[in-house]
Amino acid sequence: MATPKNIAILGASGYTGAELVRLIATHPMMNIVAMSAERKAGQEMAEVFPHLRHLDLPTLAKIDQIDFSDVDLCFCALPHATSQKVIASLPKALKIVDLSADFRLRDPEEYAKWYGGQHDALECQAEAVYGLTEFYRSQIKAARLVAGTGCNAATGQYALRPLIAAELIDLDDIIIDLKTGVSGAGRALKEPFLHAELSEGAFPYAIGGTHRHLAEFDQEFSAIAGRPVKVQFTPTLLPANRGIIANVYVKGDAEAIFKAFQKAYADEPFIEILPYGQAPSTRHVRGSNYCHIGVTADRLSGRAMIVVALDNLTKGSSGQALQNANLMLGLPEDMGLLSAPVFP
Amino acid sequence: MATPKNIAILGASGYTGAELVRLIATHPMMNIVAMSAERKAGQEMAEVFPHLRHLDLPTLAKIDQIDFSDVDLCFCALPHATSQKVIASLPKALKIVDLSADFRLRDPEEYAKWYGGQHDALECQAEAVYGLTEFYRSQIKAARLVAGTGCNAATGQYALRPLIAAELIDLDDIIIDLKTGVSGAGRALKEPFLHAELSEGAFPYAIGGTHRHLAEFDQEFSAIAGRPVKVQFTPTLLPANRGIIANVYVKGDAEAIFKAFQKAYADEPFIEILPYGQAPSTRHVRGSNYCHIGVTADRLSGRAMIVVALDNLTKGSSGQALQNANLMLGLPEDMGLLSAPVFP
Amino acid sequence: MATPKNIAILGASGYTGAELVRLIATHPMMNIVAMSAERKAGQEMAEVFPHLRHLDLPTLAKIDQIDFSDVDLCFCALPHATSQKVIASLPKALKIVDLSADFRLRDPEEYAKWYGGQHDALECQAEAVYGLTEFYRSQIKAARLVAGTGCNAATGQYALRPLIAAELIDLDDIIIDLKTGVSGAGRALKEPFLHAELSEGAFPYAIGGTHRHLAEFDQEFSAIAGRPVKVQFTPTLLPANRGIIANVYVKGDAEAIFKAFQKAYADEPFIEILPYGQAPSTRHVRGSNYCHIGVTADRLSGRAMIVVALDNLTKGSSGQALQNANLMLGLPEDMGLLSAPVFP
Amino acid sequence: MATPKNIAILGASGYTGAELVRLIATHPMMNIVAMSAERKAGQEMAEVFPHLRHLDLPTLAKIDQIDFSDVDLCFCALPHATSQKVIASLPKALKIVDLSADFRLRDPEEYAKWYGGQHDALECQAEAVYGLTEFYRSQIKAARLVAGTGCNAATGQYALRPLIAAELIDLDDIIIDLKTGVSGAGRALKEPFLHAELSEGAFPYAIGGTHRHLAEFDQEFSAIAGRPVKVQFTPTLLPANRGIIANVYVKGDAEAIFKAFQKAYADEPFIEILPYGQAPSTRHVRGSNYCHIGVTADRLSGRAMIVVALDNLTKGSSGQALQNANLMLGLPEDMGLLSAPVFP
Repeated sequence: MATPKNIAILGASGYTGAELVRLIATHPMMNIVAMSAERKAGQEMAEVFPHLRHLDLPTLAKIDQIDFSDVDLCFCALPHATSQKVIASLPKALKIVDLSADFRLRDPEEYAKWYGGQHDALECQAEAVYGLTEFYRSQIKAARLVAGTGCNAATGQYALRPLIAAELIDLDDIIIDLKTGVSGAGRALKEPFLHAELSEGAFPYAIGGTHRHLAEFDQEFSAIAGRPVKVQFTPTLLPANRGIIANVYVKGDAEAIFKAFQKAYADEPFIEILPYGQAPSTRHVRGSNYCHIGVTADRLSGRAMIVVALDNLTKGSSGQALQNANLMLGLPEDMGLLSAPVFP
Repeated sequence: MATPKNIAILGASGYTGAELVRLIATHPMMNIVAMSAERKAGQEMAEVFPHLRHLDLPTLAKIDQIDFSDVDLCFCALPHATSQKVIASLPKALKIVDLSADFRLRDPEEYAKWYGGQHDALECQAEAVYGLTEFYRSQIKAARLVAGTGCNAATGQYALRPLIAAELIDLDDIIIDLKTGVSGAGRALKEPFLHAELSEGAFPYAIGGTHRHLAEFDQEFSAIAGRPVKVQFTPTLLPANRGIIANVYVKGDAEAIFKAFQKAYADEPFIEILPYGQAPSTRHVRGSNYCHIGVTADRLSGRAMIVVALDNLTKGSSGQALQNANLMLGLPEDMGLLSAPVFP
Repeated sequence: MATPKNIAILGASGYTGAELVRLIATHPMMNIVAMSAERKAGQEMAEVFPHLRHLDLPTLAKIDQIDFSDVDLCFCALPHATSQKVIASLPKALKIVDLSADFRLRDPEEYAKWYGGQHDALECQAEAVYGLTEFYRSQIKAARLVAGTGCNAATGQYALRPLIAAELIDLDDIIIDLKTGVSGAGRALKEPFLHAELSEGAFPYAIGGTHRHLAEFDQEFSAIAGRPVKVQFTPTLLPANRGIIANVYVKGDAEAIFKAFQKAYADEPFIEILPYGQAPSTRHVRGSNYCHIGVTADRLSGRAMIVVALDNLTKGSSGQALQNANLMLGLPEDMGLLSAPVFP
Repeated sequence: MATPKNIAILGASGYTGAELVRLIATHPMMNIVAMSAERKAGQEMAEVFPHLRHLDLPTLAKIDQIDFSDVDLCFCALPHATSQKVIASLPKALKIVDLSADFRLRDPEEYAKWYGGQHDALECQAEAVYGLTEFYRSQIKAARLVAGTGCNAATGQYALRPLIAAELIDLDDIIIDLKTGVSGAGRALKEPFLHAELSEGAFPYAIGGTHRHLAEFDQEFSAIAGRPVKVQFTPTLLPANRGIIANVYVKGDAEAIFKAFQKAYADEPFIEILPYGQAPSTRHVRGSNYCHIGVTADRLSGRAMIVVALDNLTKGSSGQALQNANLMLGLPEDMGLLSAPVFP
């Protein structure tokens, strides 16, 4: 019987860190041997996340207290900008899945433009593979450093990549109207994320084409099309914790689009194409690594809407990260990721 | 001192009926003298809606038990199709504000197409005035029968009417992506409206251009433009009770749009234009008759997004109805409607 | 026609401050002439609370920038400990309704014990009247300084004061199991109050008899009984914004208790006694100044449960404050407070 | 390698049925070979519960269409009263875990009293074992028919059984104040369970000692004590989908109680005792089979409060059922049940 892999999680006191622990808890081939949380070093995970109290986990440590010599793979769930500094300092042979935005953009100028500063680990950036598993699978298997995608960026790409590749839609008229639960904002203490302010409410943010995940859309869609592609993208904050759902408005033939999805995702373990004319719901993917996609023709000829739903913390972040880690470690891609969504 | 007006409410056991009672409870010039609820006739309102138990209200009756001779104005909060039959049978001089869809469409063929049957009260339809107060004010003042708008239809029109009238946008490329709380569905007992199914969820419905409020958009926008205008419109159900918020995507100059709103709504008591570049939230209009509108330019030149938020039960339905009733009765338009939104 | 009173609100950037503004917005005899918020001085209220943007309000100021010479009454919605310092420095003739805990406890030693420090304004404390309107009405009318009650303290007292006074229950075996929405915690930025942490959750806090509102229970119940009375009291945080509901377990005769309530509250404009054997819901008082009370006998002989529901921000805090202010200013007690609850 | 067991689920279209499917989906030693839903026979599970669409499941059938000859164990998630008729008609050797109330009460008179009718399968009742795993483990291993407990009944028993057994508390003064999410009511279409009616609300129900789970408390506690024990028990409906949390008020020594829990549950895989003086939250057990228990002394000498939290659909129902099925089939008790709670 094979030996489980030793896993470290840096930034374990945030939601994506906790989600990694939740998923790995029942993974048969991974052991968590180290976890960091700079400001909560010395605490037990049960104090920080009481829902994990039944697990036998290492005490939270500072990163520089961790011995990486026996670690097979390290997840970095650190804030942007911090992540690049930390990763640059880790052993050069250590396999890493980064969940931050730091290594998603291949062009340093784009990074500087969207994230407001120079990149401090360009040599790591050079070897980073973009972590959208279904479209970078072979590179991920061979990668040392994988850059997890933005959760919104993943959602939009599942809708659009096969259509751009198959030249099925007008590239100059794409609108992604996306709704997201609040856990995507992390454990940040800000007024709009208080229950008293968000419950029973909904509002768009990062309006006008200012959301940073647009940088990923620009990079990826332009690469597929071989010409610049710029979409409109507006996220709306929902009074919900988990879940992203995007209405993607395109000009193209809905039935051809449907067939393109059936073909593109035929063998994908986590992508479910709904019957033609149906739309998914965030509730039906909650807590799972599954992504549901529906296609509908509009009453207006030549227009179609694609609806994509996934759980931002799982398929949009920590689940994706684990899927990539499985590939990097030579394990079955779906190991530890087959739990069904939690409904109701 | 003037004598208060006598008011009847038909269909008082639904949410819009209850909302009318809530608003009229503190209206200084209206007395509720009769209320109907066919299946709950004989019950007190406190049994049907315990939040109204402190009020001294008439016992619920069947419609044919009500004496309309002293009634100054009657609100009809009945289901579609029922409403037209009832209104056709009411005294011909009775002032009526109808909250159903029955008298919104001027073309009987459009009614038949969208609502699936012949209209049974075409003579009433002929005199009905469309109830979007800000744009039909003078006709409403003189009307006997006012047809309340769809709540989604009102929301979209606040965003688009001034822009179509001022020829500021491309009429062939308009997308209304709207999110709505569940009270718009009424007190219907259906699985998707259960707390256990809706809470923490969100999903689009009536996809593909099939929502009936499109008939109102078609009628109104085409009339303003003097040519057919057909928009794309998709509603998403939110895990929230009250509130509609719509992202309206248009091609046009955002600053010109902003100025058009400032001009069109300068004297409106219930329409608030936010500072340029800001977006509203459903939480900030909840329980009130106020409507908040924001305009933002997109990063893509020549594209703008208008965001409109209102409370579907108040400004989108019962508040609008009361605003119209005030006009029909010669009362100040804002009487009983100035309560501030409830936040948090 | 009488001249409206000039009102100042100190601490307008918190939830109770905003709730005061909301209620006073439609009060026919009050004008808000000054509002303070130390850290947000210079901002408009529309920036701090966008739901109030339609109102014409004074710019937020620092307290020492306010001219109190024309102010008829000042509401203090400041944090505990701060409030006593500020009030001690205000003009000695200014009528004040304080919403903090600072002047609720008549015994300075009790204050020191529960609030962890010496009281800095004992001379103000000496003239303060406890603000539970229904039981201190005549003193409040004559008072210069009224100390608003704790929201939980008000809830429990509505259940128990008439029963202790009428000697209907065992004083040594009283349990108050109370559930509260999160707005009672104010706009504090703490992890348990984040939507992502509270939604779909519920947990007791201040367990073991440590909640500070117990000091009010001890003071008031002992005074009525003429002997020490100490209750058990546990609050549970609900995934809801507004509303308190308490199950109060007593040993006594349920029918006698019901009659005592009917008698005690017969003329009260805001207290509704439900039919015997029914229980209220927070949803049915939401956003209003009404309090609903129900009484039920248990299957175990000699035991009864009283259930009390009110809105913590309205009847439990700002609505109570306004009710008291009306009395202090010689206005009708219910002026501006008759809005019906918002449901759904 | 062992052969997986063949499993049938009767009543698969309700929440407990869906939860069984969710849990068994990743169970390495169970295959679902048949599922029934009388009114939805012929449909695929993906139509009834879209969150399960990724699974390869049998088509829903009527019970009399199912061939039980190869079934190793059958879960019955049918409504009360229906369940006893169906179980009486199933093969006499078939292992059955029943999730209804039909076989929980050993005394047919108690059944008739609480459930309002004669029991139609007394011969099955005679062999039924009460399904509270931790306290009936050896009987469950040997049982053919196990009667799953009420979800509230399980919660209260985890708090009280060890204390009654150890004679640590006053048996005549026990109050269970319990709060529960709405999924415990099943998929029933009733107004109080609509999102619009429940969200932001909370109210007690089955007040006065009328909840049927009291029958289980009476049966079990009296059996342990060897004398009649009758508790007070009031449930409150929470605006949440999953989760039960109970404050259990007892007279006894808190530290002795804490030690009794540590001893009683020392080897239990799913019961977590929190550090002394802490209380659990429903959010920290959500979607899992774990139960969290906390003990606190009150400020009043000799009084203690035990707080118990579990997920009503998992540990309170379907998870418990699977735990028992594992025992009956000779499988590891925790197989398929180790998923961590879903937070946030």
